[in-house]
Amino acid sequence: MNATVTARAHTNIALVKYWGKADTDLIIPQTGSLSLTLDQFYTDTTVVFDDRLTADEVSVNGQRLSTSQATKVHNFLNLVRQQSSRTSFARVTSVNHVPTAAGLASSASAFAALAGAASRAAGLTLDRTALSRLARRGSGSATRSVFGGFVEWHAGHDDLSSYGVPFVEDVDWPIAVVALVLDPHHKKISSRQGMQSSVNTSPFYPAWKQIVADDLAAIKPAILAHDFTTVGETLESNAMRMHALTLSAWPPYSYFNGDTLGAMQTVKELRAQGIACYYTLDAGPNLKVFCQTADVPALTARFTQQFGANNVIVAHPGPGIQFLD
Amino acid sequence: MNATVTARAHTNIALVKYWGKADTDLIIPQTGSLSLTLDQFYTDTTVVFDDRLTADEVSVNGQRLSTSQATKVHNFLNLVRQQSSRTSFARVTSVNHVPTAAGLASSASAFAALAGAASRAAGLTLDRTALSRLARRGSGSATRSVFGGFVEWHAGHDDLSSYGVPFVEDVDWPIAVVALVLDPHHKKISSRQGMQSSVNTSPFYPAWKQIVADDLAAIKPAILAHDFTTVGETLESNAMRMHALTLSAWPPYSYFNGDTLGAMQTVKELRAQGIACYYTLDAGPNLKVFCQTADVPALTARFTQQFGANNVIVAHPGPGIQFLD
Repeated sequence: MNATVTARAHTNIALVKYWGKADTDLIIPQTGSLSLTLDQFYTDTTVVFDDRLTADEVSVNGQRLSTSQATKVHNFLNLVRQQSSRTSFARVTSVNHVPTAAGLASSASAFAALAGAASRAAGLTLDRTALSRLARRGSGSATRSVFGGFVEWHAGHDDLSSYGVPFVEDVDWPIAVVALVLDPHHKKISSRQGMQSSVNTSPFYPAWKQIVADDLAAIKPAILAHDFTTVGETLESNAMRMHALTLSAWPPYSYFNGDTLGAMQTVKELRAQGIACYYTLDAGPNLKVFCQTADVPALTARFTQQFGANNVIVAHPGPGIQFLD
Repeated sequence: MNATVTARAHTNIALVKYWGKADTDLIIPQTGSLSLTLDQFYTDTTVVFDDRLTADEVSVNGQRLSTSQATKVHNFLNLVRQQSSRTSFARVTSVNHVPTAAGLASSASAFAALAGAASRAAGLTLDRTALSRLARRGSGSATRSVFGGFVEWHAGHDDLSSYGVPFVEDVDWPIAVVALVLDPHHKKISSRQGMQSSVNTSPFYPAWKQIVADDLAAIKPAILAHDFTTVGETLESNAMRMHALTLSAWPPYSYFNGDTLGAMQTVKELRAQGIACYYTLDAGPNLKVFCQTADVPALTARFTQQFGANNVIVAHPGPGIQFLD
């Protein structure tokens, strides 16, 4: 009897960004990074290996994927089969509670959940570090979604040395992230393409490595000290420098849209009014605003007025991977 | 009898940007730059020194400036008085045929025209190099507006060695610049503040110097060879890297608005349709699209549809400074 395993993983927002691979096959990053796992966005994935199947069967949000759509999942399952004694194909059923591909990093929760469910369904017993290494092979940021709270990704230099490490897993600090959905559509340039273009063509890329080193050195003690201003300034600065890499690539590109710029302006106005908050964004137009929970009502009121209540989602620090069976 | 002198100078659009001062008092730039003087945007300035005046009197577009508004003009006239035998105050009457402070560099034409009119009204006979050095003291980009066509600014290292040089003054190449007025309002962060912030706070700034050196080395032979693609790709890449400096400064800022992003997207779409054109922009949201004259009808039709006919202005290579008396 083959085990059916369901795992839940939450997405994460990078405060110090992962932007560039040193090894595109193994997904070894150029630099470390640091994220906060969020409670509101997660993926539930169920996996069962079944000898009667003649191919991997993958459905996401109730829709069966075609073979070509499922290539990344199939390749990932091959890794799991290599590590285990399984040879049979698998049935994968995944439900994303994340606006897909809208810069909210659904691939992080998706591959962390898949790593958990598939490895356990295949009979493997991986510790969290091994699970983080496995998740990394599906999507770089998934390596961090294995853990809750503030998580650091140690860049490492090979498959063994590159994995997430919990930095502050139980967050005892009243902070929140207000996520603004400014464009629910699929992004035109994936983060995979975008970061590769930055590495290969931006003359600013060499300086990025030092920026990340400096920002990690600044943000880690600030998180431990609950120094909101330093954490906020560091994450906003780091995000804009990542986006400067996209503008300085050839051909140049930007993940911003007009609403992104409008939301950034609102954050600056809120700060000028004395409400401390800072923005970050990834490979998509949707701004995420880091704030203190006491200020959530004022922020949601302001952003609801600007973008509508349906496009304002309040998240808090979320947990690491969970097995639901 | 004191001479009344009127000078006309045209604005210019930098194809390789000036972004950062090495000496903020003398306005010595960190790097060289290269521009195209444009026929459609110019300033006419009339100057007379008059012993009866008890202060410099400055009017722009029919409006008398207050003493504080006229500070930069007054300081500039002091330079002219230092170089000449004049001690009296001056009456300055200036008309800008440029959307003021909308990223169309009205200060370039304004200070080039003022340098011409004021120096001649003061009895000085300056050659164009000396005029370019003088104009530089009012506004860096004015140093290039003394000349027509393609103009290089030699960065130099002191007041004597930093000036514009005509690169191709009589442009025998059917090119045009379609200027899009996307926001007619005064810019919030002046280019003066913006570039200083980039120099002082962007970790990418050191790499900018090499970018400019490389871009100058690429664009100059391409201009001589009428290699439109290389000129276009170089100017677009250079502009986006300049704007990457603003995003990567602390605090980060951007001169883009939603229409800027929309116009950039249109340029990319036009290129995908086979119409070669490339964009650049300075310290404001207004895109300038470099194109070949044969494509001007198609471009103006497309941009008129997007932004309205009043906001689309077609310019061609313009002349150097002219004396109208």
